[in-house]
Amino acid sequence: MRKDAEARNGQLTKPPGALGRLEDLAIWYATWRGTDRLQIKHPQVLVFAGNHGVTAQGVSAFPAEVTVQMVANFEAGGAAINQLSKLAGAQMTVHALSLETPTADFTQGPAMTEAEFFEAFGTGWSAVSAEADLLVTGEMGIGNTTAAAAVACALFGGSAEDWTGRGTGVDDAGLALKARVVAEGLAANPSASTDPLEALRCLGGRELVAMAGAIAHARVLRIPVILDGFICSASAAALEKAAAGALDHAVAGHVSAEAAHGAVLQHLGKSPLLSLGMRLGEGSGAALAIQILKGAIACHSGMSTFAEAGVSDG
Amino acid sequence: MRKDAEARNGQLTKPPGALGRLEDLAIWYATWRGTDRLQIKHPQVLVFAGNHGVTAQGVSAFPAEVTVQMVANFEAGGAAINQLSKLAGAQMTVHALSLETPTADFTQGPAMTEAEFFEAFGTGWSAVSAEADLLVTGEMGIGNTTAAAAVACALFGGSAEDWTGRGTGVDDAGLALKARVVAEGLAANPSASTDPLEALRCLGGRELVAMAGAIAHARVLRIPVILDGFICSASAAALEKAAAGALDHAVAGHVSAEAAHGAVLQHLGKSPLLSLGMRLGEGSGAALAIQILKGAIACHSGMSTFAEAGVSDG
Repeated sequence: MRKDAEARNGQLTKPPGALGRLEDLAIWYATWRGTDRLQIKHPQVLVFAGNHGVTAQGVSAFPAEVTVQMVANFEAGGAAINQLSKLAGAQMTVHALSLETPTADFTQGPAMTEAEFFEAFGTGWSAVSAEADLLVTGEMGIGNTTAAAAVACALFGGSAEDWTGRGTGVDDAGLALKARVVAEGLAANPSASTDPLEALRCLGGRELVAMAGAIAHARVLRIPVILDGFICSASAAALEKAAAGALDHAVAGHVSAEAAHGAVLQHLGKSPLLSLGMRLGEGSGAALAIQILKGAIACHSGMSTFAEAGVSDG
Repeated sequence: MRKDAEARNGQLTKPPGALGRLEDLAIWYATWRGTDRLQIKHPQVLVFAGNHGVTAQGVSAFPAEVTVQMVANFEAGGAAINQLSKLAGAQMTVHALSLETPTADFTQGPAMTEAEFFEAFGTGWSAVSAEADLLVTGEMGIGNTTAAAAVACALFGGSAEDWTGRGTGVDDAGLALKARVVAEGLAANPSASTDPLEALRCLGGRELVAMAGAIAHARVLRIPVILDGFICSASAAALEKAAAGALDHAVAGHVSAEAAHGAVLQHLGKSPLLSLGMRLGEGSGAALAIQILKGAIACHSGMSTFAEAGVSDG
């Protein structure tokens, strides 16, 4: 399939390589879908929401009740991801994951029991529609940049400071506090640094685990994935660390303003499609990047070949 | 209007600044359109095609007859810009500018007479629809990266080598030849280096002049513009050099793989929305960037405020 897509790409009415990354994207997408000359008709956006015991440490600029308030906003259609999903023609659903029972504070031990981990993973796995032809996973959870920083630190090493950013907007003191909390989390959960899925269970949150479940299921279904920001990418990185190549069906939709996101993408060897200073989560950057992939596929599927158009090919 | 748009942006259900450049784009667009809470409903894509006498110097990897062949391809719907315009819901038209009469070889003197310049400028000016709410100008013309390099060199100084790139794919010898041709063009047209519109007339081509005419008319009509690649940007730069601020109604849609494009955008103080290694022209990068602007406006217009959604704002 890759060879067929590459051959068609070489015959389209443009100088070789003139569509840049759009050409690679179309070939990648055709390879995963197993057919050429396609359209994206059924993109799916899944937003998972979770609450985090670690917010008790004061790591977020927003109170924890904002998670449930934002879930209501997603359901009412008022959030950024609603607008961007609609623009992309995507089916968007929000999955609130036991918001009334936050994960445990990971500075004291594992955030989740194994049963809680598997429940969240299964929720993500089951949320993927077999009819989808593209998947975006997003998240909402006050405190979850702290969780993602801890997961990334466990997966990739380095210091807590390397992976800790301002999230929704903490000040310098808040940033220092977040880094200390991340370091405490790693110290309290030694298994997280040696087992990628343990990193997700001990330091992540339900929404991170659910995203990993959805992304893993998409691979089985050969549904290409666009990764969103820091939290989504840290979650997905656990899959890649657990089994190299596990994210071959995924591209990076954007690089966020959260500084550590770029570092995660570098570790994953993925170059972002967009770099617009976004740092909202919800799947917003990836949902916007659906348009880029749609453009790539529209060109690959819709353009005439040199022979069809009677254009001299140099 | 800017104050109204900024005030609304500050009340939307997201942390301040979390949508990054999307927020600036929406405010910029609302300011130029003079109303808030809008949608892009009537984007217009204008593709201008011209032939260049300077191709006699052997500056392109493709023969000059490709220009007219590609015009037929645009009219038949088979080119990249057709697919990307359709995806953006844009009305796209192609304007072939006296293809049977190439401009004069600018190494021998001015490419166009004053009458030819005004005719092309007027064609571009008249092609803009007053009903459009967004404009993209694109181009096709074998040899026109050489013309654009000469225009940019006349506008911004430096050496011919600084502004000369591989275009559709010339080799090292072709690149050296292009630079020599650009230098000869500047030497043969001294008025081009002191008067920006003379740079367009003496060194540009009809499609470059038409793009400038369209972009100027869009400003009068308060229609925001997305600039495309190197050739479009070099053309637009003549307006900015002639009257500082003339491109305040324009954003840079992308930065192309043609190396000098980034330098032109730096001179214009414009940061590109996309960087995908595209180098096709036709308006393709800018047409793809319509989606980014649509996303920005969808969020600005469609999101709920903190008060509307009952979400705590920190």
